[in-house]
Amino acid sequence: MIGIAVVGAGRIGQIHAANIHRHPAANLKYIVDISDRAAQDLATKCNCSVGTIEEVLGDTSINAVAIASSTDTHAALIAAAARAGKAIFCEKPLDLDVTTAKESLQIVAKHKVMLSLGFNRRHDPSFDRLKQEIGHGTVGDVEVISITSRDPSPPPADYVGRSGGLFRDMMIHDFDMGRWLLGEEPIEVFATASVLIDEEIGKAGDVDTAVAVLRTASGRLCQITNSRRCSYGYDQRIEVFGSTGMVQAVNQREAQVEAADASGFHRDPAQPFFLERYADAYRLQIDKFLSAVAGNSVDLPTGEDGLRALQIADAAQSSSEQGAAIALSD
Amino acid sequence: MIGIAVVGAGRIGQIHAANIHRHPAANLKYIVDISDRAAQDLATKCNCSVGTIEEVLGDTSINAVAIASSTDTHAALIAAAARAGKAIFCEKPLDLDVTTAKESLQIVAKHKVMLSLGFNRRHDPSFDRLKQEIGHGTVGDVEVISITSRDPSPPPADYVGRSGGLFRDMMIHDFDMGRWLLGEEPIEVFATASVLIDEEIGKAGDVDTAVAVLRTASGRLCQITNSRRCSYGYDQRIEVFGSTGMVQAVNQREAQVEAADASGFHRDPAQPFFLERYADAYRLQIDKFLSAVAGNSVDLPTGEDGLRALQIADAAQSSSEQGAAIALSD
Amino acid sequence: MIGIAVVGAGRIGQIHAANIHRHPAANLKYIVDISDRAAQDLATKCNCSVGTIEEVLGDTSINAVAIASSTDTHAALIAAAARAGKAIFCEKPLDLDVTTAKESLQIVAKHKVMLSLGFNRRHDPSFDRLKQEIGHGTVGDVEVISITSRDPSPPPADYVGRSGGLFRDMMIHDFDMGRWLLGEEPIEVFATASVLIDEEIGKAGDVDTAVAVLRTASGRLCQITNSRRCSYGYDQRIEVFGSTGMVQAVNQREAQVEAADASGFHRDPAQPFFLERYADAYRLQIDKFLSAVAGNSVDLPTGEDGLRALQIADAAQSSSEQGAAIALSD
Amino acid sequence: MIGIAVVGAGRIGQIHAANIHRHPAANLKYIVDISDRAAQDLATKCNCSVGTIEEVLGDTSINAVAIASSTDTHAALIAAAARAGKAIFCEKPLDLDVTTAKESLQIVAKHKVMLSLGFNRRHDPSFDRLKQEIGHGTVGDVEVISITSRDPSPPPADYVGRSGGLFRDMMIHDFDMGRWLLGEEPIEVFATASVLIDEEIGKAGDVDTAVAVLRTASGRLCQITNSRRCSYGYDQRIEVFGSTGMVQAVNQREAQVEAADASGFHRDPAQPFFLERYADAYRLQIDKFLSAVAGNSVDLPTGEDGLRALQIADAAQSSSEQGAAIALSD
Repeated sequence: MIGIAVVGAGRIGQIHAANIHRHPAANLKYIVDISDRAAQDLATKCNCSVGTIEEVLGDTSINAVAIASSTDTHAALIAAAARAGKAIFCEKPLDLDVTTAKESLQIVAKHKVMLSLGFNRRHDPSFDRLKQEIGHGTVGDVEVISITSRDPSPPPADYVGRSGGLFRDMMIHDFDMGRWLLGEEPIEVFATASVLIDEEIGKAGDVDTAVAVLRTASGRLCQITNSRRCSYGYDQRIEVFGSTGMVQAVNQREAQVEAADASGFHRDPAQPFFLERYADAYRLQIDKFLSAVAGNSVDLPTGEDGLRALQIADAAQSSSEQGAAIALSD
Repeated sequence: MIGIAVVGAGRIGQIHAANIHRHPAANLKYIVDISDRAAQDLATKCNCSVGTIEEVLGDTSINAVAIASSTDTHAALIAAAARAGKAIFCEKPLDLDVTTAKESLQIVAKHKVMLSLGFNRRHDPSFDRLKQEIGHGTVGDVEVISITSRDPSPPPADYVGRSGGLFRDMMIHDFDMGRWLLGEEPIEVFATASVLIDEEIGKAGDVDTAVAVLRTASGRLCQITNSRRCSYGYDQRIEVFGSTGMVQAVNQREAQVEAADASGFHRDPAQPFFLERYADAYRLQIDKFLSAVAGNSVDLPTGEDGLRALQIADAAQSSSEQGAAIALSD
Repeated sequence: MIGIAVVGAGRIGQIHAANIHRHPAANLKYIVDISDRAAQDLATKCNCSVGTIEEVLGDTSINAVAIASSTDTHAALIAAAARAGKAIFCEKPLDLDVTTAKESLQIVAKHKVMLSLGFNRRHDPSFDRLKQEIGHGTVGDVEVISITSRDPSPPPADYVGRSGGLFRDMMIHDFDMGRWLLGEEPIEVFATASVLIDEEIGKAGDVDTAVAVLRTASGRLCQITNSRRCSYGYDQRIEVFGSTGMVQAVNQREAQVEAADASGFHRDPAQPFFLERYADAYRLQIDKFLSAVAGNSVDLPTGEDGLRALQIADAAQSSSEQGAAIALSD
Repeated sequence: MIGIAVVGAGRIGQIHAANIHRHPAANLKYIVDISDRAAQDLATKCNCSVGTIEEVLGDTSINAVAIASSTDTHAALIAAAARAGKAIFCEKPLDLDVTTAKESLQIVAKHKVMLSLGFNRRHDPSFDRLKQEIGHGTVGDVEVISITSRDPSPPPADYVGRSGGLFRDMMIHDFDMGRWLLGEEPIEVFATASVLIDEEIGKAGDVDTAVAVLRTASGRLCQITNSRRCSYGYDQRIEVFGSTGMVQAVNQREAQVEAADASGFHRDPAQPFFLERYADAYRLQIDKFLSAVAGNSVDLPTGEDGLRALQIADAAQSSSEQGAAIALSD
């Protein structure tokens, strides 16, 4: 049994705790949160204890920590967990600052602990299938990837202010997916963005609508479109076009039902948001992390992946401000 | 050039006249109709003459006649055209009476003229594709065929009275499709029917909703569902299930467009009725008939096919009255 | 907490045990099976005890039993459980003999215990959605229902011999779905069947391909097609056609992915079989049963539903032998 | 009747000639081509004369000319036709040089003749439907348009050399569609391009794979992806995303048939190329042009539209060379 603690009892922490609680190979021992109330509520649901980060890191039966607290705590928690020799699962992003993120990775490397970043979409069965199909040669050489990613509704303006902006908070997922599927490191990014949905987002210094293009050394391209508001649900689609074929992952619905009447044929909206759309991905993500902690060889997004996506996000932000493609440094 | 006349200037006659008029190998010379006005209007559109049936049959430059007049005139017109040595295209049904239909076929046989029945659906590109796929072995041995055929709205009650009833007027198309796709002659039919849409249809002695099952000697089955009213357009679908696969022809729309909003994803209704849905089929039907008149070997529905479908329709009518499957005589 | 025992540690018993084990309101205490080994294996997985039926029924902390043993044991187990005052969940069919089934229901009625039949498809989210849409008036008055139900591959010949035949073993699910969705009791059934897949099935006195038609007093119709073999997966579709619209539940796939290449566009086969296709239905079925045991008002298939479906299956069997529609007695 | 001549008897000229020949309001009098043989073959098919451009322009019964000759002849032919007072339909592009294109428009303006550019896609029923849906408010405010446009196979290298390059030859269609659907003039374009398909195209100084982003003053965005090779047919899709909804036009197939077997569900590739995909668009384009010549008010792409698309193409070419967004001059 793997002893594990969850740090952060918010929306994402609750998902991770539930998935760990149900896992036959895991022993969820602690919930840690700055709010005693939130920690206690989640601990009760998962039949475990409330603890402090010191208790968790000092408990030799704890093999791993899952960090789902606010972004500004990630770096310190990673450093502390690494020093305590615990395997680390951390929600994205590592940090909003590249220098801090690099320091985290150095500490992790020094203490030789595993760090996996929460790029949950890599574990989505449909997106994972795209990756497999590429591997099987279904599309031949990958040439152009198109990623559509639209949230159902914009976040509150106060969240926007501390989110790091659309590129670091939202499109970072798509940068990771692009990197993962392109099969080559992007060397350049162009981005352009608008405030079309909510003026408050603009006042907070952010954008709500954006398009970006990644380019690799051999000329492979990846186009990404993001919107903070989508009337028909959480729009999550990826298309991979190559020399001999194309594969695409389409939107998903709760029920596989179609209705027809005098106005035509009707299907449900896409699933409402990430909790529903990526429920399987969150579960598989924890399964794989626990399998890796148990010593198995598992393909997981690393801290390096987290850093790279953050660097692309920074460059995309600059590109959108400068109106020119930005080269990505090594 | 093939000299040809169209008998009947109603809705179907107009389609045939237009398709013949545009055909490079045909010379449409006459329109014949009991209404001078209707004949003249159509003749003007097609740049040809109004004629009597005697003029048409006496004109040695006329090679063929296309009969689209009312059902009760078919037998006499076929007999007259056969005696005059003209190739004959005739709308379904041959006649509402099997004995009369058989006599027509005998006269046709005696005078050795070609007779093709207007089972237009055999020429629909999607249904024709099903036939081809069966031939290519896509489904292996055919086992069960499912035919859905629903009109957008019920015919006027006075039409119902002289139509011969749903089985002879509407489901006769599906009996022909079933025979054509089963690859074996049905030996038995069961049918059951209801008046669910329009009580006037019931008062006229007919039904508006029906289900039938055909069975061949080797046990292949074909299920058919008909309705005289369908809210979402002209519902025309066929599915062929076999030992190694399945092929299905789905409904068609005018524009290939999908819209999404907060209530979901929406596509247009099916095409409104047969004029739109089978426009290509009507055109290809005339193309093939003219090609056959020109001496080419072409697979066309014959008078025998028309008789056989009528016999199944009669048996289905009896079955629906008796509540038992009816054996089909040879 | 509801104390519960699972009787039968086979494929279906294992599903139920897993769903009960995970349920927060249930305390799975015993596994009962004629095979000690099977019972012990499942009890270990579910962290509970192996017991005899006597132990289970004598344990006052047991509120309910879930019966998933072989069909020939259902009646005796139901009777014993009823006499012990336990709530009963029982897999379909009640019994292969209508008289025995009726006796079971009488005993259940006498002892005033709850009995719910395992018609799992009623709990499938897509089929349940059809029922809801009918309730919401989406299709207006129900007129014609079409049910397609095809197993991926035929059962072993020895299973066929003791299964009661296709109508009682397989189509019984569709008879229940038809009754449930028609909104009126069928008064007549016609069926016709063939041996097209496996001659061994024919030698065992059964059929492998069948079509049936149900009819209600007001003339509503339900057509059903069954096959014991389907190349493209477990084909489970239902279409409900009514006066103002149509709703259909389509097949489901594991990944929502489409690939394209020079030969066209390709999607996965349907899910392989009932374990995958109805995983949610099995879970929701147990949820609802436990909720009902806890005293909530829940819409569950009853013992009466099980009897009625069996009576239709018997009549369908007779119909297929006699070639005539069979009236269903009250 | 509108007297009309077709200049250019190549692939596109043949389509226009056939559509004009069949049109009831048009009198196709001349075919003009530098090849006597090609002109004569087409004139024979269309039952008209071969003529020189001088004959055509000097014939007072000629109201209009349709120019489908090679791009380098467009400017001179437009000028000559304008001076002769003929209405002009001209294939895109006006010219590969913006200065020459502007001069053409000045001559057209001076002689007050109608000039319509052959942006055939505006007349495609599905794309036209997108425009209508935007007009009806289906999507609310347009925010992001995504255009996918992929040819089935790359053109010969010698064609590439004189084509003006992918942006002026191929993506120019998409720039026009973007302008037409955005509802606002783009003020900036970014493009990036690669040689991934055929090195010969690279040697000829062109690219075969490209992505572009248009941006309007209010921040609306349009992303475009082009490829010169597509395994699954002629990939032509457009998606319009807005504040309250989304509409998309999907690929089209010849037959509406789906097959299933053990490997899954299969549909045909997209239609092979523009002759099939845009057959309706070519026909409707001529219908509308002839209607405009007859004095009706018709919404047709103008010479100005042709100039604007060319200017965007030039800017996209520059952008792809400079790695920066290029502002579009008025």
